[in-house]
Amino acid sequence: MKKFIISVTMSLAAIAASAQVANDWKPAATNQEGHQYPMVNSQRMVRAQILAPEALSVKLDIGGVKYEMTKDENGVWTGDSAPQDVGFHYYQLNIDGASVPDPGSLMYYGASRWGSGIDIPAPDQDFYQVKNVPQGKVSEVYYWSSVTGSMRHCYVYTPAGYDQSKKKYPVLYLQHGMGESEYGWPGQGHTGIIMDNLIAEGKAVPFIIVMDNGLAVYGPNNPRPAPQPRPQGQQARPQQGPRPLSAGAFGDILIKDIIPMVEKNYRVIADSKHRALAGLSMGGMQTRAISLTNPKTFSWIGMFSGGAISVEDVENAPGFRENNKLVFISYGSRELENPRGTDPRVTTAELGKTGMNTAFYVSEGTAHEWQSWRRSLYEFAQKVFK
Amino acid sequence: MKKFIISVTMSLAAIAASAQVANDWKPAATNQEGHQYPMVNSQRMVRAQILAPEALSVKLDIGGVKYEMTKDENGVWTGDSAPQDVGFHYYQLNIDGASVPDPGSLMYYGASRWGSGIDIPAPDQDFYQVKNVPQGKVSEVYYWSSVTGSMRHCYVYTPAGYDQSKKKYPVLYLQHGMGESEYGWPGQGHTGIIMDNLIAEGKAVPFIIVMDNGLAVYGPNNPRPAPQPRPQGQQARPQQGPRPLSAGAFGDILIKDIIPMVEKNYRVIADSKHRALAGLSMGGMQTRAISLTNPKTFSWIGMFSGGAISVEDVENAPGFRENNKLVFISYGSRELENPRGTDPRVTTAELGKTGMNTAFYVSEGTAHEWQSWRRSLYEFAQKVFK
Repeated sequence: MKKFIISVTMSLAAIAASAQVANDWKPAATNQEGHQYPMVNSQRMVRAQILAPEALSVKLDIGGVKYEMTKDENGVWTGDSAPQDVGFHYYQLNIDGASVPDPGSLMYYGASRWGSGIDIPAPDQDFYQVKNVPQGKVSEVYYWSSVTGSMRHCYVYTPAGYDQSKKKYPVLYLQHGMGESEYGWPGQGHTGIIMDNLIAEGKAVPFIIVMDNGLAVYGPNNPRPAPQPRPQGQQARPQQGPRPLSAGAFGDILIKDIIPMVEKNYRVIADSKHRALAGLSMGGMQTRAISLTNPKTFSWIGMFSGGAISVEDVENAPGFRENNKLVFISYGSRELENPRGTDPRVTTAELGKTGMNTAFYVSEGTAHEWQSWRRSLYEFAQKVFK
Repeated sequence: MKKFIISVTMSLAAIAASAQVANDWKPAATNQEGHQYPMVNSQRMVRAQILAPEALSVKLDIGGVKYEMTKDENGVWTGDSAPQDVGFHYYQLNIDGASVPDPGSLMYYGASRWGSGIDIPAPDQDFYQVKNVPQGKVSEVYYWSSVTGSMRHCYVYTPAGYDQSKKKYPVLYLQHGMGESEYGWPGQGHTGIIMDNLIAEGKAVPFIIVMDNGLAVYGPNNPRPAPQPRPQGQQARPQQGPRPLSAGAFGDILIKDIIPMVEKNYRVIADSKHRALAGLSMGGMQTRAISLTNPKTFSWIGMFSGGAISVEDVENAPGFRENNKLVFISYGSRELENPRGTDPRVTTAELGKTGMNTAFYVSEGTAHEWQSWRRSLYEFAQKVFK
């Protein structure tokens, strides 16, 4: 009898739950070619599915929460997440305790791994869709670094017409966040697509964008840490993973290696008025540190979900004020609900009162994730070099 | 007593097996940053490892064989493959019936999926390692296709010095195989690295390489097939997956869209003497079909593990003989052990006897895989446009 009651209760709950779920599931835009799953519905829920006939437990792991999936008679597991924010999220599946990429998804680098990602449709997603407009290109470039004593790897966006013209262009150096890499901005960030669309609409001036790696900088002059000893039989952990750089170390690479390489190999207007530095999260903090310690190098500064620049910062960096043309600060609205320390809106407003050109942008309905940063680039790109 | 005997037998077998396995495992070059597994030893075996504490069965699936892995007391599964050929192989893990990418590996597109790949060190691997030599770059390009009525995506290699010079360059159009995409050659094919090294050594003349997608060509003028109905509860299958193109259809895109786009946007010597077409497997068959039906368009032909061109082919393609400068055919040695139909060495030798410039290259110890094709590009690039 007890068993019967439990069964009825669960069925009613299941019915109640299903009545609330919009049955308008569509394959995600981030799926691999020809894959139906994962899907997204109009409530911004994610439905994952995988064949795992002998598994005891399969979970969808997204947004820091693991959702139980259920098995049908054919061994196919299906499960839904709670509603997610619009935009891009890293996720994975967990099969009997193994955390693995979902084979249905394209692969993205973030959370310190190549793995699955999913895009939840956003009302403003048009700005990062490929369109039949004049196309720039994103190039993969290897170069020698004197700081690390090794070859390094970056991506360079050049706008439409670059190859045909003799014009010189301004340059934005654009950095990713912790646990990410130089693949972030050209990949899930859609940098090239956003810029091509903006330039085609006349909303941004054409400029070059350099996307490098602010984390993993191993080489003869900066060797990789030795593997850590681990208890017998325990799974190998990453060899510390990429180390966060002090802004000084990444600043060294940027100033001594990256900027000279770019100014040698590309048609660039090589002065501070035509040089911008921006980044998201850790990349924003690096932007702050590098621009304040090199106050005459970058006239345009963007920090996306990565702190702010205070009146005191500027006072302690002689030349910064006179040289600067814009301090752009942005956050996702969810990040501003409980700001740690001084609210960056207050810090930025105070800086503005001293006569500096500041801008504060809020990405509505998003958190510390890529939709905030795609939108931040879209806004920043319309203000920079103008 | 029976139990005891079985136990002893298994232990002896385990000891015998372990005595034969070289204990010089090293992380694969294709691993994700900071990951120890998968590993490779000097016998070219692959050792995979994954934490899956609740799993009942985990297998390493490589080279068409599934190898059982075993669990230790911490829930870590480890297993070894038989020796593999040198070079690159696609693989995956199978966890309680679910086939998934190994989270230890970088991700590659092949076997109609983004998934894991592993490189087994090769004695000649130096030719595809990044070196401190003048660097070209590989660019990601979107362009409009009149044939498909949609935007398409390709990669373009430009050699070192391209951006600084006013020179015009020859162009090689280089195609992937079945189940692969435009990501193959710039990814696991290491096209840019191979070319930079060859050009730096003076072994190849500088030329541009265009790497496009010969399979998935959906758009308003060529719509994706509707999803197939499937039995209730069965796992979703790819919506037919990418369709193989007839050479005619890919030939249309190449002739009408890709070549005009390249000759408009790049500094190119736009005649057949400076235009080459090559491809691997299906891309080799496309090369044969397209070059024979457009006999005055490409003077240099490369077919890697993808058939050969016969005397009869040439007789039926007026103009091909007079226009052609090289017919280059290659295979992995393992593919030639049991050739289907006429041995391509015989076909090529017969063509050579008619006075055409032919070359036949054999990649030693490799099969229908990327090491054969990396080596084929390395050889072909030293002969083309000379």
